[in-house]
Amino acid sequence: MSQWENYILRPEPYVPGEQPAGEKLVKLNTNENPYPPSPKVTLRLETMDAAAFRKYPDPSASILTKTLAENYGIDPSQIFVGVGSDDVLAMAFLTFFHSPEPVVFPDITYSFYPVWADLFQIPYRQIPLDEQFCIHKEDYYGNNGGVVFPNPNAPTGLELPFEDVEDIVANNPDSVVIVDEAYIDFGGVSVLPLIQKYENLLVVQTFSKSRSMAGMRIGYAMGSRKLIEALENVKYSFNSYTMNQAALELGAEAVQDPEYFRNTLDKIIKTREETKAWMRDFGFTFPDSKANFLFVTHPQIDAAELFEALKKEQIYVRYFPKPRLSSYLRITIGTDYEMAVLRGFLKRYLGR
Amino acid sequence: MSQWENYILRPEPYVPGEQPAGEKLVKLNTNENPYPPSPKVTLRLETMDAAAFRKYPDPSASILTKTLAENYGIDPSQIFVGVGSDDVLAMAFLTFFHSPEPVVFPDITYSFYPVWADLFQIPYRQIPLDEQFCIHKEDYYGNNGGVVFPNPNAPTGLELPFEDVEDIVANNPDSVVIVDEAYIDFGGVSVLPLIQKYENLLVVQTFSKSRSMAGMRIGYAMGSRKLIEALENVKYSFNSYTMNQAALELGAEAVQDPEYFRNTLDKIIKTREETKAWMRDFGFTFPDSKANFLFVTHPQIDAAELFEALKKEQIYVRYFPKPRLSSYLRITIGTDYEMAVLRGFLKRYLGR
Repeated sequence: MSQWENYILRPEPYVPGEQPAGEKLVKLNTNENPYPPSPKVTLRLETMDAAAFRKYPDPSASILTKTLAENYGIDPSQIFVGVGSDDVLAMAFLTFFHSPEPVVFPDITYSFYPVWADLFQIPYRQIPLDEQFCIHKEDYYGNNGGVVFPNPNAPTGLELPFEDVEDIVANNPDSVVIVDEAYIDFGGVSVLPLIQKYENLLVVQTFSKSRSMAGMRIGYAMGSRKLIEALENVKYSFNSYTMNQAALELGAEAVQDPEYFRNTLDKIIKTREETKAWMRDFGFTFPDSKANFLFVTHPQIDAAELFEALKKEQIYVRYFPKPRLSSYLRITIGTDYEMAVLRGFLKRYLGR
Repeated sequence: MSQWENYILRPEPYVPGEQPAGEKLVKLNTNENPYPPSPKVTLRLETMDAAAFRKYPDPSASILTKTLAENYGIDPSQIFVGVGSDDVLAMAFLTFFHSPEPVVFPDITYSFYPVWADLFQIPYRQIPLDEQFCIHKEDYYGNNGGVVFPNPNAPTGLELPFEDVEDIVANNPDSVVIVDEAYIDFGGVSVLPLIQKYENLLVVQTFSKSRSMAGMRIGYAMGSRKLIEALENVKYSFNSYTMNQAALELGAEAVQDPEYFRNTLDKIIKTREETKAWMRDFGFTFPDSKANFLFVTHPQIDAAELFEALKKEQIYVRYFPKPRLSSYLRITIGTDYEMAVLRGFLKRYLGR
């Protein structure tokens, strides 16, 4: 081995969810939206001028930040955008978590948190969820270098009530609190209004789920001007131009179609609640998800075996071979047709 | 000030080149290509399906890596792609530069190198260019934790000959050597063939200059499988999906039009050489650029004053108020028309 190989950073390799290709498969494994983006996105795409790509995109991403600001009734200086919420969250870790105290987050949660902490040499402490996968707000009060959790949580789908989130923020005046609201639009209550009350609260959202644009990589953070300015300073020092021009323009279009957005969400929520009902009939149990997925287990079925059986039928869901999670499957809410295919298979599998 | 504000990372704010809007202005300040991307990009854009954006992009970016691999006659496993070469270079710093010895690069060079080193806490040493802005290859032999330099260099445009670059690589068997070839297509000679001979050589290129796609943010690195695999492991651990679907597909189209690419480069090189001739006639001096810009100075003219005078006329160039650079302007090679506008102004300014 050459000397230079000793100085390579070697993180634990992460394997993303499969992206199998093919028209026939039922893809319920990466929490994508089963419906296409707003028709306004298609229209804008059709009239987009490729010649404009020769120039760098607007580094301030103003078309997107202005549109989001109008949509949420906040000031553009309170919005920071990035290449998916992963980019925004990683940037937030890098910007805000420099206390000698450990950053805290749940032990069962989005799998990238510990990875980013390791990467940026940020000390962290994972706080166990209870047996019902619930967060106890008191566990997060003070004595930390920062707080981060998804709401609803992943991969459980459980929502922490607005008041509990506010209590966590209010009891951490010395830390930045990041609430990762990737799944909030599917029936949860956003704590966005609290950014006007607490300067240390950062709310992160994404276009990948509710806005049907995972393929365009758009995420954003909302918070006080202090927080957003700090994020921008770090981002500009690191890479001036991250969002490409197409993402900026198409993202802005998606935000300007609230009616389509609402209809899409309503359809997914309706499908989710119907899925809960027949899943329960089949003997599955699950936390009461407020997200676009269910985290299900069954007393008579081995989750790993069911995962493989589903895959053979071209039905892709997510299985986590980890402590506390290995008897569960995470199933994205697809179209009614996709859920009917799943239901039909499970009926046969369960011998009903 | 609240306690949490003490733990914010506060890098020196970086101010990117201006992106003024407007049709009339002559924009020669950010080294963009004056010509649009290949017509194949426009065609692909017209038939792109917005519905596909609901899904995550292919994390392996295979459509783009395969197309680039074919174009360069190398294996897809030797290519790593990212959100512009800034993203690729930052990821390479993070991946390869973990030696206790300092990474070395020229004192006058791409301004992001020291920023990334600071961000990732990488020790570095800047090696002064000589008075003609030349790199002396011997200065880079060994005793370092890594080597990085642009070829041609920025903002001078000077190319280090192929043999000298090889000597630097050959004399650094214990370090990763990164050659940043952002401007190589404008008449320079790429050291790409050397990646088959030296496992520790990484060649970085971009779509932002020669391929007229700064707005889409596409960069790539080419090297041994060992280097590329290490980059991929770090990238996947950090963010699985960085390139959006539109960038992957449109980038692949651009690569598949070598004739258009060649024609565009030939036009820019011709304009550059013509610009050199009349600039010389006007009394300007400059390093003999192999890039799509000139780095010019004039014995009778204050560069800062000329910069402001040009700006008033809506002609944007780049001025660096830094030691050794403050008597120069960096002028991007635009269309023949744009250069004629510049020439006309300079003629009046110089009273000729």
